[in-house]
Amino acid sequence: RINGDRLWDSLMDMARIGPGIAGGNNRQTLTDDDKKGRELFQAWCDDAGLSMAVDQMGTMFMTRPGTDPDALPVYIGSHLDTQPTGGKYDGVLGVLAGLEVVRSMNDLGIKTKHPIVVTNWTNEEGARFAPAMLASGVFAGIHTLDWAYGRKDMDGKSFGDELQRIGWVGEEPVGARKMHAYFEYHIEQGPILEAEKRQIGVVTHGQGLWWLEFTLTGKEAHTGSTPMLMRVNAGLAMARIMEAVQAIAMAHQPGAVGGVGQVKFSPNSRNVLPGTVVFTVDIRSPELGKLTSMRSQIEEKAQAICAELGVGYAMEAVGHFDPVAFDPTLVQRVRSAAEKLGYSHMDIISGAGHDACWTNRVAPSTMIMCPCVGGLSHNEAEDISKDWASAGADVLFHAVVETAEI
Amino acid sequence: RINGDRLWDSLMDMARIGPGIAGGNNRQTLTDDDKKGRELFQAWCDDAGLSMAVDQMGTMFMTRPGTDPDALPVYIGSHLDTQPTGGKYDGVLGVLAGLEVVRSMNDLGIKTKHPIVVTNWTNEEGARFAPAMLASGVFAGIHTLDWAYGRKDMDGKSFGDELQRIGWVGEEPVGARKMHAYFEYHIEQGPILEAEKRQIGVVTHGQGLWWLEFTLTGKEAHTGSTPMLMRVNAGLAMARIMEAVQAIAMAHQPGAVGGVGQVKFSPNSRNVLPGTVVFTVDIRSPELGKLTSMRSQIEEKAQAICAELGVGYAMEAVGHFDPVAFDPTLVQRVRSAAEKLGYSHMDIISGAGHDACWTNRVAPSTMIMCPCVGGLSHNEAEDISKDWASAGADVLFHAVVETAEI
Ligand SMILES: NC(=O)NCCC(=O)O
Ligand SMILES: NC(=O)NCCC(=O)O
Repeated sequence: RINGDRLWDSLMDMARIGPGIAGGNNRQTLTDDDKKGRELFQAWCDDAGLSMAVDQMGTMFMTRPGTDPDALPVYIGSHLDTQPTGGKYDGVLGVLAGLEVVRSMNDLGIKTKHPIVVTNWTNEEGARFAPAMLASGVFAGIHTLDWAYGRKDMDGKSFGDELQRIGWVGEEPVGARKMHAYFEYHIEQGPILEAEKRQIGVVTHGQGLWWLEFTLTGKEAHTGSTPMLMRVNAGLAMARIMEAVQAIAMAHQPGAVGGVGQVKFSPNSRNVLPGTVVFTVDIRSPELGKLTSMRSQIEEKAQAICAELGVGYAMEAVGHFDPVAFDPTLVQRVRSAAEKLGYSHMDIISGAGHDACWTNRVAPSTMIMCPCVGGLSHNEAEDISKDWASAGADVLFHAVVETAEI
Repeated sequence: RINGDRLWDSLMDMARIGPGIAGGNNRQTLTDDDKKGRELFQAWCDDAGLSMAVDQMGTMFMTRPGTDPDALPVYIGSHLDTQPTGGKYDGVLGVLAGLEVVRSMNDLGIKTKHPIVVTNWTNEEGARFAPAMLASGVFAGIHTLDWAYGRKDMDGKSFGDELQRIGWVGEEPVGARKMHAYFEYHIEQGPILEAEKRQIGVVTHGQGLWWLEFTLTGKEAHTGSTPMLMRVNAGLAMARIMEAVQAIAMAHQPGAVGGVGQVKFSPNSRNVLPGTVVFTVDIRSPELGKLTSMRSQIEEKAQAICAELGVGYAMEAVGHFDPVAFDPTLVQRVRSAAEKLGYSHMDIISGAGHDACWTNRVAPSTMIMCPCVGGLSHNEAEDISKDWASAGADVLFHAVVETAEI
């Protein structure tokens, strides 16, 4: 078993970097705090005898050598970046559990045929730069490097410039390395494991996603002196589209969600009807048919709403992945490890997107989940217990060692 | 008649300070550009022989002496601050037409019994600090000075600190001075005068207003992994309230408007259901009964919507004035001046709020309006013609001279 206290201490140490305002973290990608988080992780990896390589997306690959020079590495990865008001565990647990696996292997003198590479992917959250899982997406050949560099945050700063600014542009071409297998350990971010009282989620599938960014153009005008019938009200169109998203997601139950997290009114003044309204609809389903049907219904409805109000309509898909089925052999290996270790477990579908969803395109991949309190994530109050954290790391340890072959 | 070219040149000169991005202006209150605008206006007033007094709200009172030392002054006022994406004329026309009236009186050697005071009220727009017409509201005894100083912008900066920062805290107690009469000349900001082909709007009334700031508390959570039925969706509640505002305003036609110009989602991340949504509803009517009825219907409906979704509800009224009836004697004087000068005119109700709405509480007040293209205001494309600007200034000139007595 891994050292649960050491894992927990590292989680708490990392959480000191980029503290939030309510007990969680704000360590968004490519900020100064992201830089500090990387440095701390690098120092820990140094101590554990890992050697570092960094690719052109800033992703950190920390290698423990294997005994067979020809064997491809087994990867354990996740992310150290957080939401603006994020928790201490989302992503961080997966990276630091990877480190803990290596530390435990060192303690126990375990040598493996395949190297082990602990990975910190850049910009998993997609909070600052859409889409999410940007670096793993370039790694898997989904996006080009140039396109990724050109992604802009709300202040108009580009990913490429910000990566340069914090000094983490690596030399290694993105996607150059090959993987024997990829494991990602993550908190569930949903309510199921806790409700079902299971310690381990064996992740068989991941939901697919669309992020639809709508840009609605109204007529910027005085809220007081512009008669109701002369208004071209982009805010009202947004409200109606939000209601439609809710209705369409509800009509696709079970196994579908839809909502809006980001809204920007311009000029955003109390007595000005907005000239422009930009907002992003997030829809997901583990079933491709439902995902596609929701997207087309939402687009159709949004166009009709805008046409009726005379509001200008534009839509750009700023994030997408199809539903994922993880590698059956690795999934079974996780299930067996949980069984062998005596942890209660169940099969589960990931509601969130993860870097494993992209690596799965280029290498056998799978995930392990632990419960989180109240299913809460993307919230500073996100919480897990030390026991939960340890159990999943134990399962990760066993599945990885079996895959990397002693 | 006044000098229309000189008035126009001054408008164009002022518009160079705090230029917008699309031909208009961004000279929001208490910014560095507001400071520059004040300095330019002060220099022009100096040249015209006016002496300056500044009150504790930063309002500028520029006096041309009268011949009777005991006669109360006649005021001509409006504002030099703009919306974030404002036009070149909203407010500015009224202040610079006041200056032009004085310049013309100087040219023509006109002496009046009552002094003339050209006034630039601080923070009329309410864009940066709610409510609108803040300084004239303190002047009229509606708000206290301390309350006004404590008003905060979106970045948390206070009105008092920002007034200090730009160096325009005056000595004069606010509301100390008495007025013989107050005139405000403004663009209509609505479509009626242009549609009716009238040069002059004789403003008999002003609409009343409520700004209702709603703070909705949801459960900040992951947009992907939080099941639909576990959501506490403050964004959806906002959407429903927006739709209700539209329906309630439509049900109060004619003579009522309602809309939303400002929205803030927190944390405003694409994959986070908002923890907090703050937005402001702006409702107006010239009829007190309709205004009151709209407010209570909106509050009732908003509470029901939030209760149904389990969303936390709070509402603060951050702006208010009752419908206004301007002084009948002054209104008639404006009407007669338009007639005498041969300008086409009609009676009109102001859709927007103006400092005259507050001065009317403490002194006989009235307004004059000129058309604006397409009724468009609070938009950088706001436009008027030089002829329109001059005609209203002529009417102002005659009404003021008659009131100030030669
Ligand atoms: N795990 C996680 O929250 N990733 C961010 C991408 C997503 O929105 O699912
Ligand atoms: N005239 C004007 O736009 N004033 C701002 C206050 C309001 O919203 O009516």
